[in-house]
Parts: sequence; structure tokens; C-alpha cells
Amino acid sequence: MKAGATKQQIRHMVERVESVGLKAILLEGTNRNVIACIGDKRHIPEDFWAAAPGVERAVPILAPYKIASREAKATSTEIRMDGAVIGGKKVAVIAGPCTVESREQILATARAVKAAGACALRGGAFKPRTNPYTFQGLMEEGLEYLALAREETGLAVVTEVMCPEDVPLVCKYADVLQVGARNMQNFPLLKAVGETRKPVLLKRGLAATLEEFLLAAEYVLSEGNQQVILCERGIRTFETYTRFTLALSIVPQLKEMTHLPIIVDPSHGTGKSSLVGPMSKGAIAVGADGLIIEVHPEPERALLDGAQSITPAEFGTLMKELAPVAAAVGRDM
Amino acid sequence: MKAGATKQQIRHMVERVESVGLKAILLEGTNRNVIACIGDKRHIPEDFWAAAPGVERAVPILAPYKIASREAKATSTEIRMDGAVIGGKKVAVIAGPCTVESREQILATARAVKAAGACALRGGAFKPRTNPYTFQGLMEEGLEYLALAREETGLAVVTEVMCPEDVPLVCKYADVLQVGARNMQNFPLLKAVGETRKPVLLKRGLAATLEEFLLAAEYVLSEGNQQVILCERGIRTFETYTRFTLALSIVPQLKEMTHLPIIVDPSHGTGKSSLVGPMSKGAIAVGADGLIIEVHPEPERALLDGAQSITPAEFGTLMKELAPVAAAVGRDM
Amino acid sequence: MKAGATKQQIRHMVERVESVGLKAILLEGTNRNVIACIGDKRHIPEDFWAAAPGVERAVPILAPYKIASREAKATSTEIRMDGAVIGGKKVAVIAGPCTVESREQILATARAVKAAGACALRGGAFKPRTNPYTFQGLMEEGLEYLALAREETGLAVVTEVMCPEDVPLVCKYADVLQVGARNMQNFPLLKAVGETRKPVLLKRGLAATLEEFLLAAEYVLSEGNQQVILCERGIRTFETYTRFTLALSIVPQLKEMTHLPIIVDPSHGTGKSSLVGPMSKGAIAVGADGLIIEVHPEPERALLDGAQSITPAEFGTLMKELAPVAAAVGRDM
Amino acid sequence: MKAGATKQQIRHMVERVESVGLKAILLEGTNRNVIACIGDKRHIPEDFWAAAPGVERAVPILAPYKIASREAKATSTEIRMDGAVIGGKKVAVIAGPCTVESREQILATARAVKAAGACALRGGAFKPRTNPYTFQGLMEEGLEYLALAREETGLAVVTEVMCPEDVPLVCKYADVLQVGARNMQNFPLLKAVGETRKPVLLKRGLAATLEEFLLAAEYVLSEGNQQVILCERGIRTFETYTRFTLALSIVPQLKEMTHLPIIVDPSHGTGKSSLVGPMSKGAIAVGADGLIIEVHPEPERALLDGAQSITPAEFGTLMKELAPVAAAVGRDM
Repeated sequence: MKAGATKQQIRHMVERVESVGLKAILLEGTNRNVIACIGDKRHIPEDFWAAAPGVERAVPILAPYKIASREAKATSTEIRMDGAVIGGKKVAVIAGPCTVESREQILATARAVKAAGACALRGGAFKPRTNPYTFQGLMEEGLEYLALAREETGLAVVTEVMCPEDVPLVCKYADVLQVGARNMQNFPLLKAVGETRKPVLLKRGLAATLEEFLLAAEYVLSEGNQQVILCERGIRTFETYTRFTLALSIVPQLKEMTHLPIIVDPSHGTGKSSLVGPMSKGAIAVGADGLIIEVHPEPERALLDGAQSITPAEFGTLMKELAPVAAAVGRDM
Repeated sequence: MKAGATKQQIRHMVERVESVGLKAILLEGTNRNVIACIGDKRHIPEDFWAAAPGVERAVPILAPYKIASREAKATSTEIRMDGAVIGGKKVAVIAGPCTVESREQILATARAVKAAGACALRGGAFKPRTNPYTFQGLMEEGLEYLALAREETGLAVVTEVMCPEDVPLVCKYADVLQVGARNMQNFPLLKAVGETRKPVLLKRGLAATLEEFLLAAEYVLSEGNQQVILCERGIRTFETYTRFTLALSIVPQLKEMTHLPIIVDPSHGTGKSSLVGPMSKGAIAVGADGLIIEVHPEPERALLDGAQSITPAEFGTLMKELAPVAAAVGRDM
Repeated sequence: MKAGATKQQIRHMVERVESVGLKAILLEGTNRNVIACIGDKRHIPEDFWAAAPGVERAVPILAPYKIASREAKATSTEIRMDGAVIGGKKVAVIAGPCTVESREQILATARAVKAAGACALRGGAFKPRTNPYTFQGLMEEGLEYLALAREETGLAVVTEVMCPEDVPLVCKYADVLQVGARNMQNFPLLKAVGETRKPVLLKRGLAATLEEFLLAAEYVLSEGNQQVILCERGIRTFETYTRFTLALSIVPQLKEMTHLPIIVDPSHGTGKSSLVGPMSKGAIAVGADGLIIEVHPEPERALLDGAQSITPAEFGTLMKELAPVAAAVGRDM
Repeated sequence: MKAGATKQQIRHMVERVESVGLKAILLEGTNRNVIACIGDKRHIPEDFWAAAPGVERAVPILAPYKIASREAKATSTEIRMDGAVIGGKKVAVIAGPCTVESREQILATARAVKAAGACALRGGAFKPRTNPYTFQGLMEEGLEYLALAREETGLAVVTEVMCPEDVPLVCKYADVLQVGARNMQNFPLLKAVGETRKPVLLKRGLAATLEEFLLAAEYVLSEGNQQVILCERGIRTFETYTRFTLALSIVPQLKEMTHLPIIVDPSHGTGKSSLVGPMSKGAIAVGADGLIIEVHPEPERALLDGAQSITPAEFGTLMKELAPVAAAVGRDM
């Protein structure tokens, strides 16, 4: 309560707290009175309390997410798909171009990343583009090429879905449904992928707090889909040398908060191919369960994100360099 | 080009620039060589150039949006709807509860804000909620109550639409389609509202740059819908005393960049009812074309956003206080 | 306490709380136990508690600043100097060039801003420059010119002091000691200006929270100098269209928290002369007690900050435009 | 130049560019005219150009720092002190308490961190404290204890200096002068430490861009002191789960820009002891030259920063875990 809250305001709040089924305890302090609310009503927003007269602020004690929390499930979740596990001892590497550009491009990339040790192929068929005048993806044709690549290489296919009505189509071809950073709080989409039984790769929004990130995962989980892979891909800060700020500290922080696996995207997270290698090593060292890396046969000719893509040859070298880092922290590649 | 770029790399880039139809001029400097690219190819991303060997960075000279720009259209756009113009001399005030909770709640609020001078009624029927366990809106029932309120009061109805498949339904009831901050880069939704001929109120994403904001507007405009109202509602910064940071400086900045009208949301922008009044005055003083304000008959009992809602009585007082501020900057209320 | 905190850890914390003279009350919740600490020990940092085993987090109820708080002093503080009051009904305008460049430049500017209605003259003699190779100020010579200008015009002189050893020298010439944004947490400097009896104009650091800002003021106040003027000058965010983000919402927010006067710097806050006018109007509308504006006779030839300076003629026009805005919110110019 | 810039404005700018000794080349584009300026005048701020009529913006091609740049010196700089090299093949670890609290505390810590493999001892005698009512350090007494610890253990002493007048005193005892994050742009202090011949450990300001960080280093370098160690310690972002956001991507980014060694502070960078281990591993994996870690014999009783301190035993374990990570990236411990 505020310093100047009246007795009547305090009494009123105590009654309100009790009216929703919580126990209220009044703590009379030297400068402030505090009403402790005991019970589990975490669906009631802080805001609900803060609007009443005489209230200074409401401090939630319980996290607002449940199924995603480490308390709800102590053991780490492993997500299984054809030929890949994410969240196990082995660090999982998903690789491929930003966008499916042609049959040849995606097949050549798939073969190369498979040979280098990737467990899944990424590639966008539906592309969320900031600028309406730029290439928006091959759509179903792109999905078909991804399926072809899976057939040939055995790699699982990870691809983005952008709206609820595309979910059935993308499910037909994909092994993992990616929800992009700009859609992290697209709640109808979260519900739609939550209704499927495909693993969901959920990218963190570029200004999302960890709590909002876990609440977005909770949308998927609460629809009955328990297979959510969290992906850190950089946040927006004042720094402009890199495209985003890749905050690796969230990996060990999330490990304390949730049982879900966490992977890192060093390509979008930095926007610079020269930083992909060091940040991949850093991600594994801090405990990430996997990486998602942009690989393009000819970065200079990529329709999108060329500046942050590495070549298949660079990817092969990087995979060799990552193995000792993984071993150093008790993981396999 | 980088300091150490080779002659061959420079020649290669000059050829690439010319191959897309631009004119290339090589500027040989004391520490760096620069290739000036002349022509209008603003659909080619910076990234396309930055991926080539020897390139240090690409600096775009032209803004990537076209239809939204002040250069494309020098006169300010006015959006007209029943009983309201946004972008004219009169400052437009949209008011109403965060969420439609009941027939009585919305009718009572509509009457009160109409009496105080609002030109449009806001109220959410479909609510984007961070937490999946909280109230998600009355949906079509809510839209019906809004339509009833319009019938009775003559206020235009502004309400949010959250996914492409809901656009036809919301169009049936609404005068203005609101795209929320979390959906500012939901591109399928932007295209869907762009295909309608209803005015679109586009809220700025909480980490969106001004360029991204105008490119989101460009998505709507490029589908043929010229009626876009921009809305600043606070950005996410390190500051935690207010829910978001309401950066009024973007209002005069956007006025230089675009012909579209700009309104301000002091309720979401601050998250505190005590700041709604001062920030409304500030918004008008810096040149905003309108305000969108949360008004609830009983903020303490609001299902959402009670802490930032003001009462009808407070709204009435505020409207009276805003009139001299508008007059002081040459506007009417 | 954490969900899994042991009885022993809880008992241990209760003892620690009591050992520093606070009363501890254990609240046993459904998922967490909370220890309420009653008493006023706000000099103990949260951190002190958070380090103990089993503790999840510490939530301070009392603000850590005392003298600066509105609770400590309900009436707003007015700072008086020759020919000027800051914090009264009249909006105070401090104007002048970023840097004192010459006798003629400062005298001409002083006459012009005096004629237009400014109450004080700003001008840097010691300049904090990001780049070591750029102009660092005229130093004592600059102070002398400022004193000359005061003699001729009667304007109070506001100028920056950059380190404790310069305080006596600057005091000899200045009416108000300015502490720059980059020095907001230069604690030896804060103590040194706190030991003088000159008013201190304290600029908010570009990443300072409101609490840190008020604690910086508290350093000055706790040395016995009660004359602190707070100055918002823009924070650093992801936005790059303006040099900084001028968050006017902190003005009414600070008014709730502190009795100290608050002024706004629209020149540094935006970095663009075209935005100085609108943001000055906005600052007054949200309740600022004053403005500090960069005025230069020839912005194009200014040694520093030309892009954000306005001419004396533009300043004269602006002052006339500000008067009705001030009147609209019950203030004088 | 702006889209509507007149011929006269363009001619005027061409003349201004040439008047400062640069060559001006006018590039006539389809929507904009651009004036390319050839020559090395990087001490002229962008701002100088942007203030002229008709100018839209100025884009600097050359970085504003010189001595710090990788171009000025291609080989990486190694900083040598008694028993330690920072910037060599061996990863240097500086460890010790946030603050010197007593003779016993600092000696015990020094012995423990020496035994575990640290090469230098950190410990604050002069403490920059946000809150004026909290412990400010033992001052000279603290420096004496640090010197005693060096005598006994052979560890180099790293300690903070807060203002120019303390530089001689701190130099008497310290091997490395630390400039704290809040003083990164305290220019008189940077000059004062630049005039000494002691290595300077320069912490990045919490809202400093990389360019500002390197310009701060340039202040020290340009005074003739070539021994600057850069230290990343977390930036301020919207994220609140950690105290700051430790952006490891700046390590490989800075390695491209500068020859100076770069170390990481995982203690301040996260504010949580549980994250110190993972982030130390991550820092080494991304290529950091060293670490600075807070170690306290009894974190729970630390006067400052207990929540982010680890115990000597934890430090010993961590050092053993770091060795294979260093080996994995071709470094020694």
C-alpha cells in the first residue's frame, strides 16, 4: 500500500484479496503497510490489484507459467524426431539456408550439412519479410523440395509456419514447426501449433522477457503439445555493430527456470558470418542443447541473409572445431 | 570496401552492382575505397551486398518504404469514418475499455465517452494475452455489443483483429481494424487487412524501429488500402517504472517521414492511470493527430489493464483540460 | 525463499533478518515461503539477502533514497538564483550554445536569449568529448566570457564541471553547477558539488534508472546541498532516428516520487534542431519546470552539436509559441 | 542531401567540404544527390556536416579511433605485469572480492585464488556505490592490504581508481588501474591514467557502444599509455532476470576492430553466482583473453555483491573445468 493509504483502503483491499479465495495477512511496517496474499491464483494479473485505490504496487511471488517450469517437471525434456534428439547429451545441429531458393540449392546444402554432422535441415518456404517488396518464399514448392531433401538424406525438416491456416499444409511436409521471433506472441498461431503433435521450435521475440518467452511456450504446452524447443536468437538493444545482441546468459538462466531444451541461433543473433563460429562455440560452452545455423552454397548470391550465412565448407570446419568444446563441457556432437 | 580489399574484389563488386542495373562509381579514398551505387533498387536488401568478399558494409541512401513516405505524397492523409476524421485539424480521441466485458459495461462507457467528446469507441473482443490462463475476450458476442453501442451513440468502432481468418468477421462489425503491437510484423495479417477497405489502426511493435514501423504500414498500403493510422504505444527499454517508455519524439519525427496520421496511446504507453493525463497533453503538444485512451467504469474491477484505465469522470475532466493545449498548438478538440 | 528451501535455510534467514534489527515474519504459502522483514534498513542492499542459501530473491518495499523523496518533503522545492526561480509557477528556460567558442559568440547569444525571455545562460567551458581528438573547451577563458555575459545581461550562468578539482574554479564563475549525463554516477564529483552551496543541475545518465537518478541526487543532498535540479536529456534505446530517446513520461513520474524540480533538454534529447520545438512544447505540457535549449548564432559553424542547435531567431519564435502551451497547463513563461 | 535540396545548398556544401581540405565529389542519383568526401578528417564530427541546410545526414566511412584500431596495429597487444600476461596464449584469470573488507579476508582470498591458478588479485579499496548510505570502501587501508597480499602470493593487484586526484595514491600500490563502467566516459580520469605507465583495465560503460568504448580506450592511448585491457561487463537492456546482459558477441567483434586484449566479467555481467561458471566457459569459448571473477570467502556475509560472488572452493572447481574449454579453442589456462 502507498505510504498515505487510509485504513479504509487497507480494509477494502484485504476484503478484495479474500473475495477471490486468497488468504490476506496485513504486515504493518514502519513506513508502509503490506498485504501478503497467500494461495495460488497466478492467473490473476498484477494489474488487477494495482488498480485499486491506495495500492502502490503488486509483487507476484509465483511465476505465471506452470507446465513450462522446472518445478512442474524436474527432469529435462528430450524432443525426439527421425534421426535426432534435442535436449539429450548430444548437441543437436540444425543447418541449412535461410530460404529454399531452388531444388538444387536445397539438395546440395542438405547433402553437405548431413555429411558434416547436422541432424536436421532448416529452410524457409514461407518467409516473414520486413519489406513487402522483397522475396516472400517459394511456399508449397519449397516444402516439396525440403521433403525431397529429407528423403534423400534422412535429415529432419525444420521450417517456419506463419499463420494458423498454413499449419495443416506445413505439417504435411515438416518434422518441426518453427514459430519465428516476430510471431512469438501471435497467440492464434501458438494455439494452432499447440493442437498438432509436431515438435515446435519457438524463437524468442526480439524484445521478449524470459517470462514472456516461457508464457508463449506455455500457450503451446497448454494445448497438449509437450514438445517445445526454445531458441534464443538475439535481442534488440542499443548496440548496432551486430544485427541483434546474442545474450548467451539466458541459456543457463532458462535451464534453471524450465525443463524445455534450449538451442541458439548464432546466424540471426549476430547477422555476421565471421561471428557464427565463435558464438557457436560460446553457445555450447554455456550449455545450449543445440544450434541452428544458416548455411548457403553461395552466400553472396543468397536471396536473403547472405551476410550471416556460412558456406558448406566453413560449416564442415566449424563442426570439427565444435566437437572438443562439446567434450569440454561433457557433451557429444 | 574493407581497408584491405583487393583490386579483384573491387572489380567484382563493381560488376555485381552493374549487373542489377545500377550505375557504379568507384571513389578512391585515403584509407578506404567506396563504391557509390546510383539508381533506385530499394527492394535489394543491404545484406545482399554485405555478403560479398571484401565488403565492409552497405549504406542505403533511400528509405526502403515508398507509398508511406512524405516524398511520395506531400500532403497529410486524412482518414474519414462515420462522425470522425483522423489527421485533420481536430484532434481525434478514441476511448473505451481495454476489453468488452458485458453489454452494460460497453454501453455505459460509450455513452460517457461520447458525452465527453470522444469520436470513436475502442474495446477488444479478441484479446492477445501474454498468459494463456487469463481471459481471452468475448469474441463475436463482444463485437455485437460494440455494434450496439455505435447504433446508440454514433461513435465509430475500433477493435482488434488477431489473425487473417477473423478479418471478415471483424469487418462486419468494426469501423476501424486495429492491428496490435505484438502483431505489427504478422505479415499475413497485414496483407489481409490491406485487402479490405476499412481504415487500419497499426500499433508500433514494442521493439520496432521507425523504418520497420513504416514498412509494416507499407504492407497494408501496397495491398491497395490507403487508410493507415499509425499509433505509438510505448517501446521496451531498460526503464521499469512505467510499463513501457512512451517516446513522444517519434510523433514529430514521423511527421517528417510520412504523410500518414499518427496517434498516441498514453494508457498502454505508461501502464499507469496517473500518467495518462500528463502524457495526453504532451502528445497533443508534440503534434499527435489523436489519442486512444482506456476508460473503464470501474477500473478496479476491470478484467484487464485496470491499473492504466481512467474512469468516465476522469476522462470528462481530461477532455476539458486537453482543449486549451490543442488550441495552444493550433488544433481543435 | 526458493520452492525447495529447507527448514534450516528458512530458520537461518529468519535469524539473519533479526540480527540486523528487523522483525521477521514467516508467511507460509502454497508453493513458496516468504519472509517479511519489517523496519527501515534501506541502506542494506537487496543483494545482501539474495546471497544466502535458499533465497530466491529480495523485494525492497522502501525506496533507497530518502531526502529526495516526496515522502520526506511534500512541498515542491524551488531553486532560487539571481533573476530566476526553477520549480515555481513560471517555466524557466536556460539557453545558450553547447560550448563557449569566443567572447563575441557568447555575448551575442546571451543578449539574444535574454531578449527572448530566457532566465539563464548555458555554455560549456569544460567539455566532455567522446572523441579525444576533438575540441575540449576554452576552460577558464570560457568561464570568464560567461561571467562577462552575466554582468551585461543579468542572466544566471549554468556551466558544467567535470571533476572534483575543478569545482572551486567553476564555482568562482558559475551560478549553477552542471553535472553531465556521463558523470551522473561520478560519485567523488557528486560529493564535491554537494559540499558547495551552489545549485546543481544534474543530468540523467543515458542508461540510468529513475532510482539511480534519485540516488545520484541523494549524494548531493546528503552532503548538505539541498539545491538539486533534475534534468531529463534522453536515454539510450534501440531507436536510432533520434540521437537519444527523450522519454517525457519520466517528468510526471518523477513528480510523484520527488519534490525536486525537473527540467528537460530537448536539444541533446533528440539531436535534431527540427524536433526541439515540438519536444519543448511536449515537455511543458507534461509538467516540466523548465527547459535547457541549445542556441547558437550560426549552427552550421558550431564547433559542437550544430545539428541540434537552433538560431536566436528560431529561439525567439519558439518562446512565443511556448507561452500558450504553458498557459494551457496553468504555468507562466 | 535531402530530396528537395536546392542547387545552391549543394554548391554551398561542396565548398564547405573543400574548405576543410577534403575533396568533394557530387554523385547525382535518381532520388537524392550525395556528396562524397575524400580524405582523412575523422576528428570532424558527423554533426558538423549535418547542421548545414539541405543536408539529410552524414555517413562516416572511417572509424573515429586510430591508435586502438586493428588497422593501426595488426598484431594483438600483450600486457605484461609481474607474473602475468594478458593477451597471450594463456587465458588470464583475475579473481578476488568485490571489496577489500579486512586484512584477513583479502589474504585468505588471495591465497585461495593463487592456489587455484589466478594470475592477479582484484579488490576494491575505493568503491563507486549507487547508494550514498552504503559502505564506500576502506580506501588507503584497503590498498595496503592488497599490497600485503601481493607480497605474500606474488599476485598482481588490480584495483579501481575513481578520480584523477587519487591516481598517484592508487599507483603506489596497484599493478593495474581499473576504470569502472560508470567512469568509462570520465574523461579527466581517462587522461590521468593515460599519463601513468601502469596498465589500465577499462570496463565498458553499461550503455556504451563499441565505438564509444574504443574512443574511451583511445583517450588513454593518446596520452602515451599503450597498455589498455578492455573489459566487457554486461550492458543494460530490457532484460531483468540477470542484473545486466552479458553480450559475449562483442568479444569476437572487438577482436576484428582492435588489437587490445579483451577480458570478461561474468560476476557483474550476470549478478548471479549460479551463472558465473557457465558464462566463464562461454567467454573463453568465444575467444576472451581473460576473466575477472568475484570470489569471497563467505558470499553471504559480503558487504557488497554477495549474490554474484563464488566461494574459493567453487572457484577452484571452476578453474579445473575451464582448462578443457581453453584447450578446445587452442588456449592454455
